[in-house]
Amino acid sequence: MKIAVDAAGGDFQPENPVKGAIQAVNENAHISVCLVGPEAPVRKELEGLDYPEDRLTVHDAPEIIGMDESPAQAVKTKTRSSIVVGLGMHQKGMVNGFVSAGNTGALMAASAFILGRLDGIIRPTIATFFPTIKGQGLMIDAGANLEVKPEMLFQFGIMGKIFASDIMGIETPRVGLLNVGEEKEKGSETLKKAHQLLEALPSFVGNIEGRDILAGNADVFVCDGITGNILLKFGESIPEALQTLLFAAMKKNQIDGEQKKLVGGLLKEAFAPFDYQAVGGVPFLGVNGISMVGHGGSSPEAIKNMIVNAARMAEIDINKKIITSIA
Amino acid sequence: MKIAVDAAGGDFQPENPVKGAIQAVNENAHISVCLVGPEAPVRKELEGLDYPEDRLTVHDAPEIIGMDESPAQAVKTKTRSSIVVGLGMHQKGMVNGFVSAGNTGALMAASAFILGRLDGIIRPTIATFFPTIKGQGLMIDAGANLEVKPEMLFQFGIMGKIFASDIMGIETPRVGLLNVGEEKEKGSETLKKAHQLLEALPSFVGNIEGRDILAGNADVFVCDGITGNILLKFGESIPEALQTLLFAAMKKNQIDGEQKKLVGGLLKEAFAPFDYQAVGGVPFLGVNGISMVGHGGSSPEAIKNMIVNAARMAEIDINKKIITSIA
Repeated sequence: MKIAVDAAGGDFQPENPVKGAIQAVNENAHISVCLVGPEAPVRKELEGLDYPEDRLTVHDAPEIIGMDESPAQAVKTKTRSSIVVGLGMHQKGMVNGFVSAGNTGALMAASAFILGRLDGIIRPTIATFFPTIKGQGLMIDAGANLEVKPEMLFQFGIMGKIFASDIMGIETPRVGLLNVGEEKEKGSETLKKAHQLLEALPSFVGNIEGRDILAGNADVFVCDGITGNILLKFGESIPEALQTLLFAAMKKNQIDGEQKKLVGGLLKEAFAPFDYQAVGGVPFLGVNGISMVGHGGSSPEAIKNMIVNAARMAEIDINKKIITSIA
Repeated sequence: MKIAVDAAGGDFQPENPVKGAIQAVNENAHISVCLVGPEAPVRKELEGLDYPEDRLTVHDAPEIIGMDESPAQAVKTKTRSSIVVGLGMHQKGMVNGFVSAGNTGALMAASAFILGRLDGIIRPTIATFFPTIKGQGLMIDAGANLEVKPEMLFQFGIMGKIFASDIMGIETPRVGLLNVGEEKEKGSETLKKAHQLLEALPSFVGNIEGRDILAGNADVFVCDGITGNILLKFGESIPEALQTLLFAAMKKNQIDGEQKKLVGGLLKEAFAPFDYQAVGGVPFLGVNGISMVGHGGSSPEAIKNMIVNAARMAEIDINKKIITSIA
């Protein structure tokens, strides 16, 4: 399995992509990585590091797409950027997948444009991991599709279920439709129709409400991209907000020293599932290829996890499973 | 100011409505309350309690609308229920407002049907308090309008701003539009158009993202009823979920006894703003009257707060302000 890695993507490039790639090849004998980015700085970063040279190569892509650039514009004009070059290599069959911690919008646009849609898929989607008290869940869509049709939500459910079982290792994922009430007649016309369609899936557990997410009452949370994106960012903000509230309570009660350290440590441990930098990347599903994107602040560990997951998606041929299920 | 209180609403009726009403009249010389519900059990609950009889009366309404009844059906058939009778009294001018901890859907349907819409309002809405690290915010809509037009979101912003300043006491409320990005060109067509309309308000701070809610980067969070309802219930679930995670971390680290008690106490204090039973009720805005609904589990204190807020809304003639601002 050969995965192309965006060496120019993220807030800590090329350092973190290079280190993540090295970890991935050193720990996984079946994985090769091609680092795609401006060659000189990437080679400089590699200097003195220990890795199998036959499984870690560099492919020059001198242009850089910034984190704040307009996605469509960047993809169109920067044809020698790591994102366009890397996805092009994947489209030509030179690599089995592409991962990046770069500009999500650009990666999404380029993935849809360069790789194209899978047969039968109305719209590609982006899924995101979402922590629950029972383990990681998957929210789908996380911001790619702001306006959805019932049939799209149905397809999100199918794709999410496959990713949850085959990549996340959840044995029998429960697919829930985010809604304002449990009863099937609740919600907008779109949600009611989506509910009817989803009932055809054995994994569908019905409507779930906002309170069911953290409680882990489903594994796959199906929603439109507005709801998913707002919930995703809301979830990411919980640890800091609650740390602020808890530390204020400690200050008020004059708790400091060892006890403060104790509480801080417990908080850190309790909030570990919310650490989006550690989770790795999230997949674009429904494109004709393997494409994953990580948070801009992704650690080398996160990038390694993305590479491993991309390799696994390619190995099991997740897209073939999706096409079969959709058909 | 005379407020009708649903004595048959909520999980602890008639006890909590009766006790909340007594607290309200005992603490506020300018407030009178009329308890609306089945007369015998209400009078029994009042026995032996101390209150000014001239400011606390009972009006018989023998039928009860259950928490799970179909709203439209219940309102149509149970014309002698506390909700229909109480709102009818308000509509006839016998009282200045109506508060209930009962079936939200039924109260919403009955408020719109019996009181009617305010002049110029496209759709009445339900707002809800939302805790932030800077104090209480207001989310509007919280589940009344699942499908919205830009003009409706604009009106939610206006009504939310008036409620935040005049009832919540926020000096210069910042109105934000919940969206997937800060830039004005982000979001669905509805959100883009709503952004343009909201720009006419001096209090509008632009788009806000999911991460801005708990951080308190706005005071009024404008959104459709699906997003608002899911976020509301998600928010309510945070304390329990994080208590589970923190207690698991303590167990793993063999922390118990005094230290466990300390952490538990801090959590309780830090999460106090999330205690939806203490906040009181939330308003229906845009109806031609004053109507508030509280959580089914509302404490006497919460019901008292609702009564006081309803009286204040009537005193300042909030609906006149809304009509003027909308026009």
